[in-house]
Amino acid sequence: MAKPIHKRQGKQDTNKRAIALHKKLGGKLHIDSAMQIKSRDELSLVYTPGVAAVSSLLAKNNKLARDYTIKGRTVAVISDGSAVLGLGNIGPYGALPVMEGKCALFKTFADVEAFPLVLNTQNVDEIVAAIAAVAPVFGGINLEDFAAPKCFEIEDRLKAMLDIPVMHDDQHGTAIVILAGLINAAKVVKKDLKKLRVVVSGAGAAGTAATKLLVKAGIKDIVVLDRKGVIDASRPEPHKKALAKLTNPRKVKGSLQDALRGADVLLGVSGPGLATAADIKLMAPKAIVFAMANPTPEILPEEAKKGGAVVVGTGRSDYPNQINNSLVFPGIFRGALDHKVRAITDDMKLNAAKNLASLVKRPTAAKIIPGPFEKGVAQAVAKAVR
Amino acid sequence: MAKPIHKRQGKQDTNKRAIALHKKLGGKLHIDSAMQIKSRDELSLVYTPGVAAVSSLLAKNNKLARDYTIKGRTVAVISDGSAVLGLGNIGPYGALPVMEGKCALFKTFADVEAFPLVLNTQNVDEIVAAIAAVAPVFGGINLEDFAAPKCFEIEDRLKAMLDIPVMHDDQHGTAIVILAGLINAAKVVKKDLKKLRVVVSGAGAAGTAATKLLVKAGIKDIVVLDRKGVIDASRPEPHKKALAKLTNPRKVKGSLQDALRGADVLLGVSGPGLATAADIKLMAPKAIVFAMANPTPEILPEEAKKGGAVVVGTGRSDYPNQINNSLVFPGIFRGALDHKVRAITDDMKLNAAKNLASLVKRPTAAKIIPGPFEKGVAQAVAKAVR
Repeated sequence: MAKPIHKRQGKQDTNKRAIALHKKLGGKLHIDSAMQIKSRDELSLVYTPGVAAVSSLLAKNNKLARDYTIKGRTVAVISDGSAVLGLGNIGPYGALPVMEGKCALFKTFADVEAFPLVLNTQNVDEIVAAIAAVAPVFGGINLEDFAAPKCFEIEDRLKAMLDIPVMHDDQHGTAIVILAGLINAAKVVKKDLKKLRVVVSGAGAAGTAATKLLVKAGIKDIVVLDRKGVIDASRPEPHKKALAKLTNPRKVKGSLQDALRGADVLLGVSGPGLATAADIKLMAPKAIVFAMANPTPEILPEEAKKGGAVVVGTGRSDYPNQINNSLVFPGIFRGALDHKVRAITDDMKLNAAKNLASLVKRPTAAKIIPGPFEKGVAQAVAKAVR
Repeated sequence: MAKPIHKRQGKQDTNKRAIALHKKLGGKLHIDSAMQIKSRDELSLVYTPGVAAVSSLLAKNNKLARDYTIKGRTVAVISDGSAVLGLGNIGPYGALPVMEGKCALFKTFADVEAFPLVLNTQNVDEIVAAIAAVAPVFGGINLEDFAAPKCFEIEDRLKAMLDIPVMHDDQHGTAIVILAGLINAAKVVKKDLKKLRVVVSGAGAAGTAATKLLVKAGIKDIVVLDRKGVIDASRPEPHKKALAKLTNPRKVKGSLQDALRGADVLLGVSGPGLATAADIKLMAPKAIVFAMANPTPEILPEEAKKGGAVVVGTGRSDYPNQINNSLVFPGIFRGALDHKVRAITDDMKLNAAKNLASLVKRPTAAKIIPGPFEKGVAQAVAKAVR
């Protein structure tokens, strides 16, 4: 599926400009002292001997760290570089610019101070141990670009160990923004959200979390596929077995085409080249298609519309309905820090999706979700986390 | 050794003000985005899709991370909270305000951006693994307030593993500033540095590193003591056995008093209540005493002078000659970042001490070392690291 020449040129231009910008900035974050230290007296308060009084206080009551240190306002954005953007397993140095970018978005969109950590290990035990070791500094942990299925174990284990919220954004940020988009897409096509037949292509981090959240939102008929077709209980992988239990009440078998027959929604969270207009024609009237792969969606919007889709969303900024988790993660952690929450619960996620959807007063096929620079996005999401 | 009432009140006041200041600031550092992101175009450069080009570049050539990410300007200040100031083993939350303060000094004195990490483990293997895991983000690692003797193993192992400089500041920062002070103190008393007879009380992080650096500087007659007296080769601890090999050519045995007889220098890096005026009288004429314990020195300056000491230094800001490692660590890492050095060598440490000493043009008994706010301190030290 070759892109038109002007798009390819545009991409090359973006790449060149991005490289030049990064070279010029030399890193997208700055750390500064909260206070100018100009005298011995100030030095004696910020550092020894005065700081010892603060240290003694926090040693006795660890919870006060949120009020007396950067813990109260700082989130870690952590990756092992095993599944970065569409680039795959490119390791910690490749991951670092993405994590810095994410930290810059945290600050820009929600005034959350975030620091990137990229790990020089891809071993689950070592990852969990390293993150648990550095956790005392942070008020929350945003896991990012960890490959499935290990992302599930890493998140589960850290959530069980730590008293600060841990969220793998590729899972839950994506799930929340998908649900938000779907709430409004259902309104546009005048279908009942809970009665939608949903096909999810992809059982990785995003597909798994989106499926679980849609189930929590009351959607009962979801069929999930991976490369081998519809997922059923015979799959050996634990997270796919668990998905099979939650989904496919009509016991659909077979391929994407089998699953699409009569479906209302196709969620693509797998990769380019998934479906054609002919496939979309198998779906129910007024179909909804979210093709989320970046940079090349599972099906291009023009092709999906040719197949009869009425509402189409992608992860891209150059089409309408950009369904991107940057609408979600800043607000989630803004709320988590403000209210000192210890975990991001399913109810918080559902409410975050509802709040985000409600920002679009009159959803249309071309506008089911706010843009990233619209005012109030982070605040609406943050309100759900308390 | 009760302090005068006005000093105790001063300390209480400092403590109260320090606690109030920390509560007001809520953390002594801020993280900001290096660039305001105001448009979709800027978003596409800082984050997806443009950032992918930078990620691909760094994945292929990890070394470029120093030019394209915060790695080139960022140092980690890491502690497990096992030996914090004079407070002892107070854990990660107690350590955090000190590490933040250190980061604020890095920025203030040398424009080095530093981020604090406090570890929720005191196990050597876990500490080493966690620090090695997060190392890709940083251009250098300042280890801080790790208890001896594990601090030696942690530093040695990390230095062998990592391609960025790792420095335990309680060891080497302190050693460098002691040597700098001693260079000028020797000039004041008109003695040859290399011929000084030095007694070191304390074989922890600071005492061990200072002894090694003084040996590198050519001082041949050093006697080191710990709580059990003069250290000789019969000691079971590996770092004390190693110290015994480097020191005590005259085979002195016994107590501090035995060691002080005829000595030119007493370095106190142990704790308060070490020596009296009578002990100092055992030393050679024109004795030099550095009593470095904080906040209460091994011997108060007035007491040391009563015993005949001519040059006296402490770690405190309320006496002349504050021999404090804040004169050293900012410049060491400033130089390390500027010149992308992979390790802090002994030669760099020796030159840093010489450069620091040379800032005092005409040393006197009351002025052997620059003050922390004097101009050019960090630059002079940084020049030694290349």
